[in-house]
Amino acid sequence: MSTKEEALSVFALGGLHEIGKNMYAIQYGEDIVIIDCGNKFPDESLLGIDLIIPDITYLLENKNKVKALIVTHGHEDHIGGIPFFLKKLNIPVYATRFTLGLIELKLKEHKIFRESELNEINAKSKLTFNNISIDFFKVTHSIPDCLGIVFRTPEGNIVHTGDFKFDYTPAKNEHSDIHKMAEIGKEGVLLLLSESTNAERRGSTPTEQIVGEHVDEAFIKADRKVILSTFASNISRVQQVVDAAQKTQRKLALLGRSMVNVVQVAMERGYLSVPDGMLIDQNQINDLPPEKVAILCTGSQGEPMAALSRLSTGNFRGVEILAGDTVILAAGPIPGNEKAVTRIVDNLFTIGAKVIYGSGSSSGMHVSGHGYQEDLKLMLTLMKPKYFIPIHGEYRMLHHHRLLAESVGVELGNTFIINNGDVVDIKHGEARQTRKVETGNTYVDGIGVGEVGDIVLRDRKQLSEDGMLIMILTMSKSEKKLVSNPDTISRGFIHMKESEKLLNDINDLIKKTVNELPESSRNEWHVIKKHLKRTVGQYIFSHIKKKPMILPVIIEV
Amino acid sequence: MSTKEEALSVFALGGLHEIGKNMYAIQYGEDIVIIDCGNKFPDESLLGIDLIIPDITYLLENKNKVKALIVTHGHEDHIGGIPFFLKKLNIPVYATRFTLGLIELKLKEHKIFRESELNEINAKSKLTFNNISIDFFKVTHSIPDCLGIVFRTPEGNIVHTGDFKFDYTPAKNEHSDIHKMAEIGKEGVLLLLSESTNAERRGSTPTEQIVGEHVDEAFIKADRKVILSTFASNISRVQQVVDAAQKTQRKLALLGRSMVNVVQVAMERGYLSVPDGMLIDQNQINDLPPEKVAILCTGSQGEPMAALSRLSTGNFRGVEILAGDTVILAAGPIPGNEKAVTRIVDNLFTIGAKVIYGSGSSSGMHVSGHGYQEDLKLMLTLMKPKYFIPIHGEYRMLHHHRLLAESVGVELGNTFIINNGDVVDIKHGEARQTRKVETGNTYVDGIGVGEVGDIVLRDRKQLSEDGMLIMILTMSKSEKKLVSNPDTISRGFIHMKESEKLLNDINDLIKKTVNELPESSRNEWHVIKKHLKRTVGQYIFSHIKKKPMILPVIIEV
Repeated sequence: MSTKEEALSVFALGGLHEIGKNMYAIQYGEDIVIIDCGNKFPDESLLGIDLIIPDITYLLENKNKVKALIVTHGHEDHIGGIPFFLKKLNIPVYATRFTLGLIELKLKEHKIFRESELNEINAKSKLTFNNISIDFFKVTHSIPDCLGIVFRTPEGNIVHTGDFKFDYTPAKNEHSDIHKMAEIGKEGVLLLLSESTNAERRGSTPTEQIVGEHVDEAFIKADRKVILSTFASNISRVQQVVDAAQKTQRKLALLGRSMVNVVQVAMERGYLSVPDGMLIDQNQINDLPPEKVAILCTGSQGEPMAALSRLSTGNFRGVEILAGDTVILAAGPIPGNEKAVTRIVDNLFTIGAKVIYGSGSSSGMHVSGHGYQEDLKLMLTLMKPKYFIPIHGEYRMLHHHRLLAESVGVELGNTFIINNGDVVDIKHGEARQTRKVETGNTYVDGIGVGEVGDIVLRDRKQLSEDGMLIMILTMSKSEKKLVSNPDTISRGFIHMKESEKLLNDINDLIKKTVNELPESSRNEWHVIKKHLKRTVGQYIFSHIKKKPMILPVIIEV
Repeated sequence: MSTKEEALSVFALGGLHEIGKNMYAIQYGEDIVIIDCGNKFPDESLLGIDLIIPDITYLLENKNKVKALIVTHGHEDHIGGIPFFLKKLNIPVYATRFTLGLIELKLKEHKIFRESELNEINAKSKLTFNNISIDFFKVTHSIPDCLGIVFRTPEGNIVHTGDFKFDYTPAKNEHSDIHKMAEIGKEGVLLLLSESTNAERRGSTPTEQIVGEHVDEAFIKADRKVILSTFASNISRVQQVVDAAQKTQRKLALLGRSMVNVVQVAMERGYLSVPDGMLIDQNQINDLPPEKVAILCTGSQGEPMAALSRLSTGNFRGVEILAGDTVILAAGPIPGNEKAVTRIVDNLFTIGAKVIYGSGSSSGMHVSGHGYQEDLKLMLTLMKPKYFIPIHGEYRMLHHHRLLAESVGVELGNTFIINNGDVVDIKHGEARQTRKVETGNTYVDGIGVGEVGDIVLRDRKQLSEDGMLIMILTMSKSEKKLVSNPDTISRGFIHMKESEKLLNDINDLIKKTVNELPESSRNEWHVIKKHLKRTVGQYIFSHIKKKPMILPVIIEV
């Protein structure tokens, strides 16, 4: 045990200055408790990368201190990194019943379910790790069973909101526990960490009820099949689809692996009520009259391999969208996915389907799960924190959240906009941003974790833009000269068959470059390679303005 | 001359089922007149491609028929393909004074200005090419000097709207000639081609005046530098910035090559009035108090090499954005650019700048140049066409435009939603979609045009995702066996230094594969290569779930 005076520290290993890979840590003395462990999807510059997860070097270096992983809810940006994390550091996981169901799916896929230690909690649970004692409060979001967390320490109380909005008419059992929040605030909050996703949006988040009404209306109007795509995890929306199907006497088919899996978890665990006999298998769809069928599918973000995309191009085996069918996109496109989504909408219109879509909530078929400015101000008002760290957002969101905090009375200078890895230490009631812990992005590519670094990515970028030119020189070791014509191979650069002249010129240039080198340099293969890279690179750029990767290979004979 | 009965045909070589590379053609008998020749920017799947331009094979095959290129206005998606087109087919170009100024910049850059035949027209011009006679009408858009076109043929009149909106309080001289449109409609329109960009948006396009008021307000409020970024070609917005600078006694600096060039064209040709002494050079900015400076710059779409992006990261030599400066993004992000733009906004907030931004017109700093549904209905109502082809849009936009046409009285079945290359023939007053002409995308990569085909792009895609593995085998021609250890080189695949074991295993596998081949196959290099590709590919995929490009090279000694 440390002999130093105990201190309270807060930091993030992901989720700040970004949307995704949320991972926060509360440390008091020798105990660290982790909140969430999400993933993030790479942007287009990270070529070939499948996932990004938090860099947990600091936690591995402090293995013995890390006591628990508490998960606020089951979205990918909060649970997607868990299997990778537990493989490195197998600590107990605490989450609600529904969240655990989704985590279990992941752990089974990664074949580490048996050795993982999963603990079910609910909003009334209490946990204690030495000087940190923890309880919870229920929040409303776009997935069932979400929690906010209170950490009680000798230094004071810290509140982490999880992802939330206020919705006074949410799906059943999904009310925020506003009274408990008020009590927590009254008791005193030293530091609030609150999510910032919609800090730029004025007003209050619309209620999920609106979506229900629009879904009902669309189902009633539709005179053929209805196909609705949404996030599988949005169980209250799934429930609305089930309800609309029941009102219009339709059977319901589920398409897409995650839709099938998540709905099953939700049904088994009591978060979704589906009338007996309503669910049908996808191969029964064509046996029923179209006005008796509804389909719930994945792919609302335009993901090219997901059900909706394949349906829109006629590539889903056994199921077809036909003219007159109604297709509903019941999810707003996440920034970056707009083009992929509109491509699908175009395909659906071409088929002759009626398509209900729109950005954000304009179609009435989607509302955000994250609180707008008035929701965020209500949380700040309930909690009345002394210190505030806006979390879960890009910089401009954190910035606006700070302004909101100031507008409801958080003192100027008491909001910390920090980055992943920055540590805020609190001692004797005073918070200060002090040191940094190691953090960053860990790339998952294939089944490798952390093997793809910046060099590989830089190479991929160059290869993706102008391809590669490989020059193979067979050289005599004794005579230090070329023993045959060089061989030039290109991939992704220019079409070889159509570019004979250029390739011949390059071959001539190679020979000339090698032969003109003084004999002393010709002995050193790396000198020859360096010269060839430069000369050939310049030649190509001056002729056709491209910069392929140039790879000289020397075979010694 | 043809002995067949003359027919009237209409088709597009670009601009349908896409935003960009607009190019339409009207053919009557032996005469073809082209409208616009734009480019389009590639999406992320077209790795390394700089530009896309229309495939003009059909026009090259009918060289002698192509009489003229008429340009409706100076946006890139209408003029960006002109230099490439004229290099292949040097026909006379007709455009207004401002549009010609922008075309000239391009032709000079491509060094073909001298040999090009440019003709200035205005809304009162009349042109005749045998049986096609042409006149024009003024339309309002987001660039000066825009035209709609009327083609009078023995078969009837065709109207092409160009890009337009109705704005009753536009910048000076940019009113639509609504009276002339009414006359044209009264005279009778056989076929209307009208742009569809905003056919999904309800209501009317807001007036540009709103932006002026918001710009003034922001300039008055700002107590330090103001930096405003917009499309250089939006001269009426540039004029509003000039006016606001004058009202607040600021000097104005222009940053970014296209801003400097386009403003110069606009001033020289009388489309922009800038008070004497207002413009300053960028190196004078730091000599003035910040409240006396405004900067107008490129980069409103988040382009990484443009002025705004470089300013936001502190990489613009000699000019800095500082805490307290006001930065205005006076252009909506084009779909696909959202993330790049928000990255800049984040950087600016980090600096401490006041940033005025927002999607679409929500900040009041941008209005669209394309008519919303009520504008499109007004055009359809004025023109009263018998037949209608919605142009300039992706499928869902064309689809909605058709619904609008039906709502104002165009007969069901008289709207043709066609694709690039589809020909609508009109004979004896009856329109029918008949044949197809060759068309497609021509890729510009470096200075090469059309050299990058699908094979090269497919290779780039594979290289970008999983990189490349090159295996070099030195084999004895006489003994048909490996004479040394194979050499394995990877780029963009895995980091070689950190993956020694995998590479060693692959080397062993190569030796095993070659040695186990029957001697008869070992003689045929392509058989060895095929086996190696398969075996090594499977090995890598089963071990690390990657599919690099595998390139076996055999050196014969």
